[in-house]
Amino acid sequence: MIERIIENVRSNTPLIHCITNYVTVNDVANVLLACGASPIMADDINEAAEITSICSGLDINIGTLNTRTIEAMIKAGKKANELGHITVLDPVGAGASKLRTDTAFELLKEIRFSVIRGNISEIKSLYQGSSTSNGVDANVSDRITEANLEETISFAKELSKKTKAVIAITGAIDIIADENKAYVIQNGHPIMSKITGTGCMLTGIIAAYCAANPSQILEATKAAVICEGLAGEKAYEKMQATNGYTSTFRMYLIDYIGEMTDQMIREGMKVEIR
Amino acid sequence: MIERIIENVRSNTPLIHCITNYVTVNDVANVLLACGASPIMADDINEAAEITSICSGLDINIGTLNTRTIEAMIKAGKKANELGHITVLDPVGAGASKLRTDTAFELLKEIRFSVIRGNISEIKSLYQGSSTSNGVDANVSDRITEANLEETISFAKELSKKTKAVIAITGAIDIIADENKAYVIQNGHPIMSKITGTGCMLTGIIAAYCAANPSQILEATKAAVICEGLAGEKAYEKMQATNGYTSTFRMYLIDYIGEMTDQMIREGMKVEIR
Amino acid sequence: MIERIIENVRSNTPLIHCITNYVTVNDVANVLLACGASPIMADDINEAAEITSICSGLDINIGTLNTRTIEAMIKAGKKANELGHITVLDPVGAGASKLRTDTAFELLKEIRFSVIRGNISEIKSLYQGSSTSNGVDANVSDRITEANLEETISFAKELSKKTKAVIAITGAIDIIADENKAYVIQNGHPIMSKITGTGCMLTGIIAAYCAANPSQILEATKAAVICEGLAGEKAYEKMQATNGYTSTFRMYLIDYIGEMTDQMIREGMKVEIR
Repeated sequence: MIERIIENVRSNTPLIHCITNYVTVNDVANVLLACGASPIMADDINEAAEITSICSGLDINIGTLNTRTIEAMIKAGKKANELGHITVLDPVGAGASKLRTDTAFELLKEIRFSVIRGNISEIKSLYQGSSTSNGVDANVSDRITEANLEETISFAKELSKKTKAVIAITGAIDIIADENKAYVIQNGHPIMSKITGTGCMLTGIIAAYCAANPSQILEATKAAVICEGLAGEKAYEKMQATNGYTSTFRMYLIDYIGEMTDQMIREGMKVEIR
Repeated sequence: MIERIIENVRSNTPLIHCITNYVTVNDVANVLLACGASPIMADDINEAAEITSICSGLDINIGTLNTRTIEAMIKAGKKANELGHITVLDPVGAGASKLRTDTAFELLKEIRFSVIRGNISEIKSLYQGSSTSNGVDANVSDRITEANLEETISFAKELSKKTKAVIAITGAIDIIADENKAYVIQNGHPIMSKITGTGCMLTGIIAAYCAANPSQILEATKAAVICEGLAGEKAYEKMQATNGYTSTFRMYLIDYIGEMTDQMIREGMKVEIR
Repeated sequence: MIERIIENVRSNTPLIHCITNYVTVNDVANVLLACGASPIMADDINEAAEITSICSGLDINIGTLNTRTIEAMIKAGKKANELGHITVLDPVGAGASKLRTDTAFELLKEIRFSVIRGNISEIKSLYQGSSTSNGVDANVSDRITEANLEETISFAKELSKKTKAVIAITGAIDIIADENKAYVIQNGHPIMSKITGTGCMLTGIIAAYCAANPSQILEATKAAVICEGLAGEKAYEKMQATNGYTSTFRMYLIDYIGEMTDQMIREGMKVEIR
């Protein structure tokens, strides 16, 4: 199934409208191109809805919020909903400031999202409305472990039920859930947290995978998470072989996302259904 | 002649003022430094004209437009015209939204450009005033082929006559034209469309090449297009030799733009005069 | 001592709030992660003070100024001062436009900085209030040489006395001074000026090193400058070994900043006390 999902991205070249932060925007654009999609970044309220109309997916990322772009996010989101497009939310730093938390809630109120992807602290903020985030990284106290895995899965399913969105909580252990079913994925490598943008890139890939496979949101999200995780494992190996470190790793990560094959996935994926 | 043009960039270190999008701005800065120029990015209306004054070239790119920066573009462009500086327009996504198309027309009305560089769909939008763009990539139906080459050359010459700017239409086949003469260039590699920024970088390089060779705009633009195309070919070879993919390619592309030699150009350029 | 300083960054993971330019912001984020810190970029006035509160260091960089973010810089800076946090100023292009020079002065008036880092032209602008900058690069006429070294050290000490900040003037020869003591550092490689962001990245690293070593600002700044300089030397060697150029160099530079060891520093640092 993952084979078909990836192939659909490459053959359909979904156009993805990104209203995203200026820190990792170049990585998001490059990773969208690498996986077979086509990115367009447009954050002005005077074109947001129009640009969304020509796309099949919308990626909203609140990593560097400002008042000007919040309005554009809402306008684009409403238009995407109207047209039945894929919409993905990345609530970067929700919980770290009132502006981010409030904006995330406003976006959830105004827009129906197909998928919400964040780290555990960000996703908890959306659920609890309280501030638990440690900047843009997950709080150590929040981290998903074998001990709290069951509880976190239940929480993800419940949040999915509440929001009607597939919930992707990513970190060392990833949970991808709708209200009935959850996948636990253990691909990836710790070095992924030593570069910026792995989360933002994943959100972009999810938007592309879902836009090319709109009837299989849960499966497409799972495939995207496995793809980036495996690319991280491959990139780490190649980084070691070439005596590089984090910046070399980042280059190979994007390379491998583009090169991902069915065989790599069949041989490398570490997924459980819960 | 290309030898002298490239050498002038390296020896004059032209200072290029860029009002450009936040997606590829880092690549544009790095490629300007690589080719021997010096970039300065400044998009606030309170400094746009002043910054332009200390530069010799102005690169205006509408990739992530917003109301605030449109005014700065016009103010900088008028000042550059007043001082006789090189001005280059990259109408990213013209045709994809009313804001982009209208802004491109407004810029053309207010500013006299030395060079306009875009893909075929963007350039057609400037000519026709109608929306034909597929996001920021060229429409398949617009693509330049042997069959429509003559017609496209005529169109480029006519647009050059109308705008007084050298027209650079880039893609698999590139056309560089003024009202009397056109070059058809077939350097480059298809993988260049799998990374973001090859167009934006090329526009920056054109600004640098023209600013260092202001009496030879057509030839300098041709040289810049050949340089990036050849760098793309070399980068693809090295990418394959190191088993990399798109992100590795992008690194080598910028490397080779900086390393471009006369010999590479003499041996590798594929240019015809029409 | 440098050993302990670097180790404190890696073990404390200081959270650094960056209000910085959109040209090099991705490099700054990646280099902060590479050296062991954690970055958060937030430039909206509605969250600037709150984000600063959860961090231990604030990096203010005026590389792409606009009216909206200047207010956020001041609000964040005042909050950081109130909380006794590390504050670092990078006056990119001070002297190149009235907006930049005036803003730098306004920031110096409203905020007490722990460290100010710039090239010699930028730092002179802060001292003289006059425009001497050549875009964002140092003027050739300003460059530090053996002939003007003593004079420049005196000037740095005097500016430190006036501002109460450690002054870091960086270029081929670096001067790190407080009002009583100056270090002259000669690490680094000329190729560092052929990529964008080495200055911005260094300012970020200084913020991280000082935030993890708040009682040793002068020593932490010195360590950061040596670390980046040495990483530049190592990266140049590896670049040559792999037949790369500036873009390859940039990747290795970030790699080596993350990999810096005590041994590399003990063996490679070129520091004099003046």
